[in-house]
Amino acid sequence: MKQAIVVRSDLDMGTGKLAAQVAHAALSGYEDAPADAQKEWKNQGQRKVVLEITGERALFEVHENAKAAGLPTALIRDAGRTQLDPDTPTTVSVGPAGNDAVDRITGSLSLF
Amino acid sequence: MKQAIVVRSDLDMGTGKLAAQVAHAALSGYEDAPADAQKEWKNQGQRKVVLEITGERALFEVHENAKAAGLPTALIRDAGRTQLDPDTPTTVSVGPAGNDAVDRITGSLSLF
Repeated sequence: MKQAIVVRSDLDMGTGKLAAQVAHAALSGYEDAPADAQKEWKNQGQRKVVLEITGERALFEVHENAKAAGLPTALIRDAGRTQLDPDTPTTVSVGPAGNDAVDRITGSLSLF
Repeated sequence: MKQAIVVRSDLDMGTGKLAAQVAHAALSGYEDAPADAQKEWKNQGQRKVVLEITGERALFEVHENAKAAGLPTALIRDAGRTQLDPDTPTTVSVGPAGNDAVDRITGSLSLF
């Protein structure tokens, strides 16, 4: 099992800010997963991959595709106190779920 | 309330890897928190700050200080498949907990 966290590389986020957004997406996606998936993923070491994407539209599409496939997913918007405009969508998590199911949604994206 | 995630800046981690380690620490620290703290922190928007630190020893110290103060905390070691030696300690989370309690442990560290 794994969880993919997809981050926009077209925003001007510093490393710390980007990491906080990824953590936010990871936790919210985890909470969206069924209890048995949560448990199994943690038992396997809660594997995560961070992937990059360009643009708001492509990010929304990942989120919609994950929802349509019935996978846990969360879309994070930045509160916008620093660096970005308020409510800028920054990240989407897909999973935790089976590797193949996650790859069907995010398999074409590159590691960040 | 907030959660601080402290990351070593003396390791040669790429941005994606660093973000994954931060997410790992955030989730493990969240799981270490009492249910009422989890809930209140989420209701407040699960505020996170990512801070930097230099060296393994200083990282361990943050973890020990958080434990001694009774705060939720998690120390993450990298599995070491890429970029780092196996079991390299990379990140420590402190909280979710009250802002003042977290600041007593991490208040001297800079934003990443």
